[in-house]
Amino acid sequence: MKTRIGILGYGNLGRGVEHAVKETSDMELAAVFTRRDPASLKINTEGTAVVSADELGQWKDKIDVLIICGGSATDLPVQTPACVRDFNVIDSFDTHANIPVHFAAVDEAAKEGKHIGIISVGWDPGLFSLARAYGNAVLPNGSDYTFWGKGLSQGHSDAVRRIPGVADARQYTVPVESALEAVRNGENPELTTRMKHTREVFAVLEEGADPEVIRREIVEMPNYFSDYDTTVNFISEEELLENYNQAGHAGFVFRSGSTGRDHENKHVIEFSLKLDSNAEFTSSVLVAYARAAKRLYDKGETGARTVFDIAPALLSELSGEEMRRRML
Amino acid sequence: MKTRIGILGYGNLGRGVEHAVKETSDMELAAVFTRRDPASLKINTEGTAVVSADELGQWKDKIDVLIICGGSATDLPVQTPACVRDFNVIDSFDTHANIPVHFAAVDEAAKEGKHIGIISVGWDPGLFSLARAYGNAVLPNGSDYTFWGKGLSQGHSDAVRRIPGVADARQYTVPVESALEAVRNGENPELTTRMKHTREVFAVLEEGADPEVIRREIVEMPNYFSDYDTTVNFISEEELLENYNQAGHAGFVFRSGSTGRDHENKHVIEFSLKLDSNAEFTSSVLVAYARAAKRLYDKGETGARTVFDIAPALLSELSGEEMRRRML
Repeated sequence: MKTRIGILGYGNLGRGVEHAVKETSDMELAAVFTRRDPASLKINTEGTAVVSADELGQWKDKIDVLIICGGSATDLPVQTPACVRDFNVIDSFDTHANIPVHFAAVDEAAKEGKHIGIISVGWDPGLFSLARAYGNAVLPNGSDYTFWGKGLSQGHSDAVRRIPGVADARQYTVPVESALEAVRNGENPELTTRMKHTREVFAVLEEGADPEVIRREIVEMPNYFSDYDTTVNFISEEELLENYNQAGHAGFVFRSGSTGRDHENKHVIEFSLKLDSNAEFTSSVLVAYARAAKRLYDKGETGARTVFDIAPALLSELSGEEMRRRML
Repeated sequence: MKTRIGILGYGNLGRGVEHAVKETSDMELAAVFTRRDPASLKINTEGTAVVSADELGQWKDKIDVLIICGGSATDLPVQTPACVRDFNVIDSFDTHANIPVHFAAVDEAAKEGKHIGIISVGWDPGLFSLARAYGNAVLPNGSDYTFWGKGLSQGHSDAVRRIPGVADARQYTVPVESALEAVRNGENPELTTRMKHTREVFAVLEEGADPEVIRREIVEMPNYFSDYDTTVNFISEEELLENYNQAGHAGFVFRSGSTGRDHENKHVIEFSLKLDSNAEFTSSVLVAYARAAKRLYDKGETGARTVFDIAPALLSELSGEEMRRRML
């Protein structure tokens, strides 16, 4: 029997999960749950139920793993602990600083409800976290480097859009090529925030807004821009929608370390991603971990987990024997 | 109490394990076992026993994990199944085609002896296998690419040295840059063996040997060279030892795949290594997996395992809480 997947929240991430489930032969989409009017939702899988999120409770026995596709700011801190009482769940909670609190809440609810909740799944946190964990385990004497981009940052785009006089905006995070190269060459550079990434803003002004005032507001914005070299480009709404609407992203994780009696031998481990669709790639990771959640639940395990707790074999459709033969 | 590590075989790999254990704070080197005269061996850890391999049986209760540092051709197929009856063991068995047979032999002996044996640990097989496993799980619709080098190939160097008239030789495997770039750009190229790697040979001739005859013998050697573009350079023994004795290696694993309704979005996952010392890096991976072997044994597990079966958290000195806080 196929693993029955439920999707809670049908935005970019939910649609990505729907596509990713179709790439597997051991899972099927059982239902999409939405807070909107279910009748208003047109999904890409014929014959699959679209249900109000209020009716989730009636699906307890019809869903093996619920993939929660909400946002980290307000949705997931509430939804994941609530849902894990009744379902095995996966989420992509990505507010790094709040992960310990979120983990504790999900763990408690999951144990009470006797389910598995795998949190913070995706690429960062997620695959990038794995690269850091393996790198640190193998090279305990070394340094970590993470670069993001080139790619659209939702949080920074929102911050620019909140400035009065800005009609619309996109913000791209760009890794500094020379810093990347220094790390790649094993030079172990000390890099300040400014040395690692630049920021590029493409903004549309409201009529009458003063570009110089707005430019200064952007580049001096604390936390978001003041620690970076930021380029601001004012363009038309047409140009923004035409040229700056890509959904791609990218990033690099390095572990640079040394071994030997006097640490004389250097080693660089690099893990990188180049993604056309941030949401679809994240969804694909979520679906792979749904497979693991089902398997852990079937073994009688309960509680919260992260990517660190999941053996890679649990993610694969292949048997252990096939994996050893084809991939080892 | 620290995990007590034993090393069986004190070559480059064994010495690397000795250094790597010193980088940890939860392991200690308990003994080095050798088939040579123990009195002839000078190791780098003061006060640690150097013992004849014949006396291994007397150390059953004094070693938590035995790291077997023999060769895959003749040592490991015998040593690993024999040792896993009495010890938790780690090996770096790397003859890909024979892994299923080796796994079965180790699994049977490990279950009889109630120990854990983690086989084929290192970087390929090992970390590269992990990159393939994660990549395939996340992007089921895609292609795998592995490139090795630039680095010294022991097997190919040996093959050249066996040719009558060759006094000494080194063989470097070199990835073809244009092929690497095509894969990195998501072009999903179909690559023949010849298109992926070139081979560079540096050979020292015996007196009177005919360079043209030897060159032809090398480049036409089936399995080893005939499917590659090979460059042969004849040099002096002094130059060979001076310039071609590096112990480094490198390599790249790619998963290139696509997602979306019509597979319209491309993604490239890249994992790469650049190593000054192949042996010391491999040893560092072995030591990280020794930590996992001890933990699985302490939980009462028995049998053979590979990197696919080991959750990343088992490799880290950090607690789950610390890992989530620092690395997720």
